[in-house]
Amino acid sequence: MADEVILLDYWPSMFGMRTKMALAEKGVKYEYKETDPWLEYIDEVWSDAYTILPSDPYQKSQARFWADFIDKKFYDPSWKVWATMGEEHAAAKKELLEHFKTLETELGDKPYYGGEVFGYVDIALMGYYSWFKAMEKFGEFSIETEFPKLTTWTKRCLERESVVKALADSDRIIEYVNVMRKQFGAE
Amino acid sequence: MADEVILLDYWPSMFGMRTKMALAEKGVKYEYKETDPWLEYIDEVWSDAYTILPSDPYQKSQARFWADFIDKKFYDPSWKVWATMGEEHAAAKKELLEHFKTLETELGDKPYYGGEVFGYVDIALMGYYSWFKAMEKFGEFSIETEFPKLTTWTKRCLERESVVKALADSDRIIEYVNVMRKQFGAE
Repeated sequence: MADEVILLDYWPSMFGMRTKMALAEKGVKYEYKETDPWLEYIDEVWSDAYTILPSDPYQKSQARFWADFIDKKFYDPSWKVWATMGEEHAAAKKELLEHFKTLETELGDKPYYGGEVFGYVDIALMGYYSWFKAMEKFGEFSIETEFPKLTTWTKRCLERESVVKALADSDRIIEYVNVMRKQFGAE
Repeated sequence: MADEVILLDYWPSMFGMRTKMALAEKGVKYEYKETDPWLEYIDEVWSDAYTILPSDPYQKSQARFWADFIDKKFYDPSWKVWATMGEEHAAAKKELLEHFKTLETELGDKPYYGGEVFGYVDIALMGYYSWFKAMEKFGEFSIETEFPKLTTWTKRCLERESVVKALADSDRIIEYVNVMRKQFGAE
């Protein structure tokens, strides 16, 4: 049994609210952490091990910039490409491909976004990897064909046990997306 | 620093996948738990304290039935009532009101769904409480006017510190819903 619990949650989640009630009723002390700045929190708590965010201030601000880009720009078309139809779908696809291109250019010939080390931006973008197949299927494009550097990078990341063990099965995501598409009226 | 981490997650979440990568890179051991059977897991781990699920087999199966009702029947119209328009919205509102009525009838004159104790079904339904105001606003109905027993029950639950501290602000949920409505094209 855990001595201390860290609850990683997203604030509007009814599951999170239930969990907080249950833990409080049990008298279990826990630390509540929003999922939004999760990785920085993890870096602070386990600061003695490998560092996710670079310590250099400039590199740190760059890493934050690209992680923000992924969540604020990339995220929106990444789900609209499978959740919408017609003009909205076409606009989402166009935007998504532009963002993939931007990410391909930013990566360039570096092994990782973090340079020589697998870091903050690599984790931020690989968090979406399980969803790539759904984006390709419903967006009708191929990452392998259009973004060779990103493709090499994903293969490099997939050599890491930490990554492979974290990812959800892409086909299970597609099944999930099919259910969501029905709910959103996108088919 | 926590000796052990419990990661409560929903499997398709990219945030969860990132967190798993980060913890693995750090070499932090953690227990991964799906959010779906969350409360039963909490009951098992902290079994020495207050019990959320009743121990009596019949009451336990009843509690599971109503928690299932909430997640499988109530959930769907509870978001469609703010996320859709036209006929779909009208159907969602009708269904949601029927489910509220069913829940009002099941509660009857008991202080809690768990009888004399605040339990599994109370936590399951109060997890939605922060969303009630959004449901009422976009569904154009009043829980207080139409469901007096549920209203008394919510007030009773809100006397518990465990509940008050767990809940998100209803107005913040409405702001969040307004953003989502734009994304879903519901306005």
